[in-house]
Amino acid sequence: MSERSEQATSTDALDAARRLAPRLAARAAEHDRNGSFPVDDFGDLRAAGLFGLMVPDELGGTGATFAGYTAVATELARGNGATALVFNMHASVTGALGAVTEELAEALGVPAEALAARDRLLRAAAEGAWYAVAMSERGAGARLSQLTTVYEPVEQGWRIKGSKTFCSGAGHADGYLVAARSAADPSVVSQFLVPAGDGLTVEPTWDSLGMRATASHDLHLDVTVPADRLLGGVEGLALVIAQLMPHWLVASYAAVYVGVARASIDAAAEHLNARGLAGLPAVRARLGRADAAVAAAELVVAEAARRVDEAPGDAETNRWVWRAKLLAGTTAAEVAASMLEAAGTSATRRGHPLERLYRDARCGSLHPATSDVCADWLGIAALGGDPDRDGSTPRW
Amino acid sequence: MSERSEQATSTDALDAARRLAPRLAARAAEHDRNGSFPVDDFGDLRAAGLFGLMVPDELGGTGATFAGYTAVATELARGNGATALVFNMHASVTGALGAVTEELAEALGVPAEALAARDRLLRAAAEGAWYAVAMSERGAGARLSQLTTVYEPVEQGWRIKGSKTFCSGAGHADGYLVAARSAADPSVVSQFLVPAGDGLTVEPTWDSLGMRATASHDLHLDVTVPADRLLGGVEGLALVIAQLMPHWLVASYAAVYVGVARASIDAAAEHLNARGLAGLPAVRARLGRADAAVAAAELVVAEAARRVDEAPGDAETNRWVWRAKLLAGTTAAEVAASMLEAAGTSATRRGHPLERLYRDARCGSLHPATSDVCADWLGIAALGGDPDRDGSTPRW
Amino acid sequence: MSERSEQATSTDALDAARRLAPRLAARAAEHDRNGSFPVDDFGDLRAAGLFGLMVPDELGGTGATFAGYTAVATELARGNGATALVFNMHASVTGALGAVTEELAEALGVPAEALAARDRLLRAAAEGAWYAVAMSERGAGARLSQLTTVYEPVEQGWRIKGSKTFCSGAGHADGYLVAARSAADPSVVSQFLVPAGDGLTVEPTWDSLGMRATASHDLHLDVTVPADRLLGGVEGLALVIAQLMPHWLVASYAAVYVGVARASIDAAAEHLNARGLAGLPAVRARLGRADAAVAAAELVVAEAARRVDEAPGDAETNRWVWRAKLLAGTTAAEVAASMLEAAGTSATRRGHPLERLYRDARCGSLHPATSDVCADWLGIAALGGDPDRDGSTPRW
Amino acid sequence: MSERSEQATSTDALDAARRLAPRLAARAAEHDRNGSFPVDDFGDLRAAGLFGLMVPDELGGTGATFAGYTAVATELARGNGATALVFNMHASVTGALGAVTEELAEALGVPAEALAARDRLLRAAAEGAWYAVAMSERGAGARLSQLTTVYEPVEQGWRIKGSKTFCSGAGHADGYLVAARSAADPSVVSQFLVPAGDGLTVEPTWDSLGMRATASHDLHLDVTVPADRLLGGVEGLALVIAQLMPHWLVASYAAVYVGVARASIDAAAEHLNARGLAGLPAVRARLGRADAAVAAAELVVAEAARRVDEAPGDAETNRWVWRAKLLAGTTAAEVAASMLEAAGTSATRRGHPLERLYRDARCGSLHPATSDVCADWLGIAALGGDPDRDGSTPRW
Repeated sequence: MSERSEQATSTDALDAARRLAPRLAARAAEHDRNGSFPVDDFGDLRAAGLFGLMVPDELGGTGATFAGYTAVATELARGNGATALVFNMHASVTGALGAVTEELAEALGVPAEALAARDRLLRAAAEGAWYAVAMSERGAGARLSQLTTVYEPVEQGWRIKGSKTFCSGAGHADGYLVAARSAADPSVVSQFLVPAGDGLTVEPTWDSLGMRATASHDLHLDVTVPADRLLGGVEGLALVIAQLMPHWLVASYAAVYVGVARASIDAAAEHLNARGLAGLPAVRARLGRADAAVAAAELVVAEAARRVDEAPGDAETNRWVWRAKLLAGTTAAEVAASMLEAAGTSATRRGHPLERLYRDARCGSLHPATSDVCADWLGIAALGGDPDRDGSTPRW
Repeated sequence: MSERSEQATSTDALDAARRLAPRLAARAAEHDRNGSFPVDDFGDLRAAGLFGLMVPDELGGTGATFAGYTAVATELARGNGATALVFNMHASVTGALGAVTEELAEALGVPAEALAARDRLLRAAAEGAWYAVAMSERGAGARLSQLTTVYEPVEQGWRIKGSKTFCSGAGHADGYLVAARSAADPSVVSQFLVPAGDGLTVEPTWDSLGMRATASHDLHLDVTVPADRLLGGVEGLALVIAQLMPHWLVASYAAVYVGVARASIDAAAEHLNARGLAGLPAVRARLGRADAAVAAAELVVAEAARRVDEAPGDAETNRWVWRAKLLAGTTAAEVAASMLEAAGTSATRRGHPLERLYRDARCGSLHPATSDVCADWLGIAALGGDPDRDGSTPRW
Repeated sequence: MSERSEQATSTDALDAARRLAPRLAARAAEHDRNGSFPVDDFGDLRAAGLFGLMVPDELGGTGATFAGYTAVATELARGNGATALVFNMHASVTGALGAVTEELAEALGVPAEALAARDRLLRAAAEGAWYAVAMSERGAGARLSQLTTVYEPVEQGWRIKGSKTFCSGAGHADGYLVAARSAADPSVVSQFLVPAGDGLTVEPTWDSLGMRATASHDLHLDVTVPADRLLGGVEGLALVIAQLMPHWLVASYAAVYVGVARASIDAAAEHLNARGLAGLPAVRARLGRADAAVAAAELVVAEAARRVDEAPGDAETNRWVWRAKLLAGTTAAEVAASMLEAAGTSATRRGHPLERLYRDARCGSLHPATSDVCADWLGIAALGGDPDRDGSTPRW
Repeated sequence: MSERSEQATSTDALDAARRLAPRLAARAAEHDRNGSFPVDDFGDLRAAGLFGLMVPDELGGTGATFAGYTAVATELARGNGATALVFNMHASVTGALGAVTEELAEALGVPAEALAARDRLLRAAAEGAWYAVAMSERGAGARLSQLTTVYEPVEQGWRIKGSKTFCSGAGHADGYLVAARSAADPSVVSQFLVPAGDGLTVEPTWDSLGMRATASHDLHLDVTVPADRLLGGVEGLALVIAQLMPHWLVASYAAVYVGVARASIDAAAEHLNARGLAGLPAVRARLGRADAAVAAAELVVAEAARRVDEAPGDAETNRWVWRAKLLAGTTAAEVAASMLEAAGTSATRRGHPLERLYRDARCGSLHPATSDVCADWLGIAALGGDPDRDGSTPRW
């Protein structure tokens, strides 16, 4: 029996996501209400083998492309955007780790034992572990250049101390991707994969307008990790990785929000048909325009993903990534607002999908890079400039 | 000492509303979170004499015009839109009662004892009583022509039986304006002022996206009221009143939502200044466009109110009423969404005013007449037609 | 030497279109100003072999797919939208004729000699003839069910009499696709390919806001054509063809207008860079949002084309066709208006590309099916209905 | 017989404007087509005494307020926006001259003979003279700080040399307000009222998208004017005046564009009724939303005017001026585009009012201060800043 047959292919993964979406949707209202983490959703994802989606074949995973991820994330988001958003973080970590080729590793000076450590992390994911991201900090946002969490070498490995915010899945993940600054040389920023356990304290600060079930709480770290938990085995690689893989920091959100937008149309259609209001011209015009806008955003997200797979980090690829982020965020917010208006007051009761989707959808434009920042970068590029050089905001 | 000096003038009322707004604002987050009725806000309103705002001078009230009401409601809404929305219902009841002139009463065949009963209700309001509205029903919405609550004459007066929904302030008001259909002749719809007490049961169904503190629960009635609680003293006046005073059913919402829109800009400016983000061009453009839009909506609401006072029910007045409703609703929703985007993720935490305002603001377009319906009526009028005759939706 | 090597492939055609675009652009201002037909553009198209684009290989043409057409039309439109719009008509005629397979011909009862006649027309196109469309009539618009042009059998063939409007390229084409109603049985609508020459009179009525160079004049017919000019050789096929190939009546416009939209961004970028205004934040935001919107519309047009090739006339294909038409039309108009605003007053001088593009771009939403009609149909479909059955407008 | 009775009051002037509007409208298509100056319109304005609108009573004029001007300009623009735009320039010159009170004159050091000269110019206007503005220059735009036209004192008065652009009414006015820089001291900018005649050459450069009948050609000056043609009699007052009366440079445009927007709705309603299309829901929704938007813009323009009369130059007044400019410009463009879409292809023929209005309406946002600049200033003010100090663009 070949190994391949034991693991999910990309198509299987997409089928699984489609199959799971209604289960996620059925639990969404309760988790939204309580701000509770969708533990059962993650059980389902594990059982379906989706934690290995981005893990290379040879390490036991599905070896999906970015486009494969995008399709899965969109389907999950049609069930519950919050679940998809947390899954997105795990996919980012495993996807970025998996994308470090031997050539790249060599170019970056990554030692062999670091690659072995990386493989262990990915193999664990294929077997059911999942990872969260602890990057943002109060005041610094997601910009690596302004972190205050520090690390220093100690006998047993690395000691890391600091506080993170917006850590989706905090308290539930098996490990956390943590960015920190060297105590010895503040210009050096490194990333660690910190295992769940002692030394990590979750402060339940997450109580948000939308995407409430992500449990994006604060995470306080005062922890020592083994030496091999320094990603890449060399200090100072964080920024390099960020620049090589901007899609994981930007476009992966886009897949989630087109799913949210499409879910809004589905929910509105169901609501209106159930009430016999499908014949109202104003309602039809709203659904028709929403349908066209979402179809367009879906294509842009798919095209961005295709290019990420083909030429990650290229200037033209990055433009598609920003287009995807901009359009997914603005489309989701506008469509959800219009669908709620089409459905009317009875859809504003808590527990109605459109009530939740209206709140969830507003969050897309706010994730970095925000819609306004994407518009600025795209404008610079359209004018022949270079967003890295000419942008009014530092990109990372 | 003249009686006049003891009671608030319209200017005093507006000053009071301005003075109270920050107190309402300070309590808004908690009531929004819990969906609890702002009992203390209503204590403040009572103490400030605002329950008598629409009560004629000679009955001990302020005798405010509709424009006077509009200004007060907008200021209250800058504090808490939900409180303003409930106050709006009381103002509608007392305003409509107070607007029945002796001429109109005579024309409608209102007997003298009914006017005396009316005066008692108004005098009570001036002394601190407040009234809610129990008009809508599941399935019928706010359309009088489709009610299922019925009444019949009994020895002690009138027996009323049925269920109402969206009754803002349910369980807290001193009386309820109830529309019901005659058991004997279903074509006859009458209105009653039902006192709080036995026979009324509040079913706490209200748990909504926005305007959560209005306690707009279901109200079940199985109650007998004295004969003089039939408003107008004659059966069948409900529709007449509705047609004479469309502003109370439409424009009074508008005043609330321009207040909500303005509060969004205020909150965004405070948030952005506190974080030193006032210099970002994209942020400035958002605030500038929002400011212009809200300023325009405020003028339209004021103009509609001025015309309501001058020529209530006229075709041209009604156009202004629909313009006010349309613009207040759409402007509030768009401005609140844009201000939240300007402020960024940190403003999406529950408890932040912009998080609440984004949800509250979405409700304006959904109150009857919805924005889409107003657009249809205005379009008919702009094309020289008559919305009453040519509209695709029955108006009441 | 194979025949294939003598004729252009689809890739060659696209290269040719790209090469010609600047030549078209250089002549666009003059033709726009005078409303004169771009005779030299059509000479260029002929020389490049583009009149054979949709003609099957075996008849000497390029045998392009609908997607191939779409790409060519978009490129031509980046040069001059009016030229692309007239070319679109020729492509529709040859594309629809070329798409009649032997199976379809058999199913429709098309006799062998009619297929031979069809082949002659296509072979002529491959050799440099081009055809215009004379379908619309005053009062009837493009709806076949309301035509007043009639035909009757005569000894030499068919006598056709009537007046057409919006006939792009009138007076310049080698032949005209004319829809007419049978004098004997008004329910029968047939199509003829009327050769240029006696019996056709052009009345120069075209003097329009935009797309001025299309020479879409009125065409009066009082003409007798040979028997083999009845398309399909059987009367009454017009509606069948329209229903089988809705993409040629709707989506072919979309390709033109995304080209116009993209040309607007290009022109704005060139204008702003020349004036050193690329650094203004408001300008950058405008270009960035325009870029994302146009990129999205381009993908939707390409996706619609891909599906037309794969499953023409299918319900899902038609949804993509309407999405493409809706988004191309609205995006072109909004983008051109915003780009003109970004560029400022100096771009409003006649002769400036943005001045023309602003006018050209407004026409896209107005071609049938209009944007509002597409939104209605898409809304019906999103609600699970069938636009053919439930639409408020007859589709043809 | 009192002098007052011989001259028009503000109400008379408004009546006259209403009476003239259809005459202007009847001529608008031809002047738009040819780009010819509406000489007969100006004959009508003169005959109606409207050149004296802003001239104080005591100098023989109407002594209208800014609000009075606004109402007149809006009515004229409903007839022909281009005519109203040229009239606006004359009103600006006479309005600014008339607004220099004795107190202000004293404060600025204006000598008595300069006031007498001023009075002569105003009295001439009341008797039928009209003035154009020659302020803008290529490259400098309307910013006084970057002019290249220079003047120097000569024996007979002042010699002025330079070239102006966008001079509305060039070749038709009786005098031109010219801003120039002192040859001796480039920091000194002064204004002159240059009489028509020798030394002025009109170069017919105006050939624009919209507002084609304004004849806003280039004006070359090489002219000597009498000493008393230096406005204020003191050099260097230009910037002071600009800062004192920003409404004449910004808000006066707004009045014109709300008239254009309203004319678009009127024309669409007439067109749609004539074709029996008033029943289409999409059409009604477009007209309804347009009606509300224009009504709002009209109120904002009126409010800005009211405040200009009450407290010209105040910070709060300026905010209203910018709101008026922003909303009039954006509303006109959006409404005209939507009305053309509602009316359909038949309204795009040249000569149809909607075809012209679509082009005219686009120009409003582009006049200084542009919509984007107004949004920036309003955003600064909403954030508590001072646009003069914090704006990214110098205001004059």
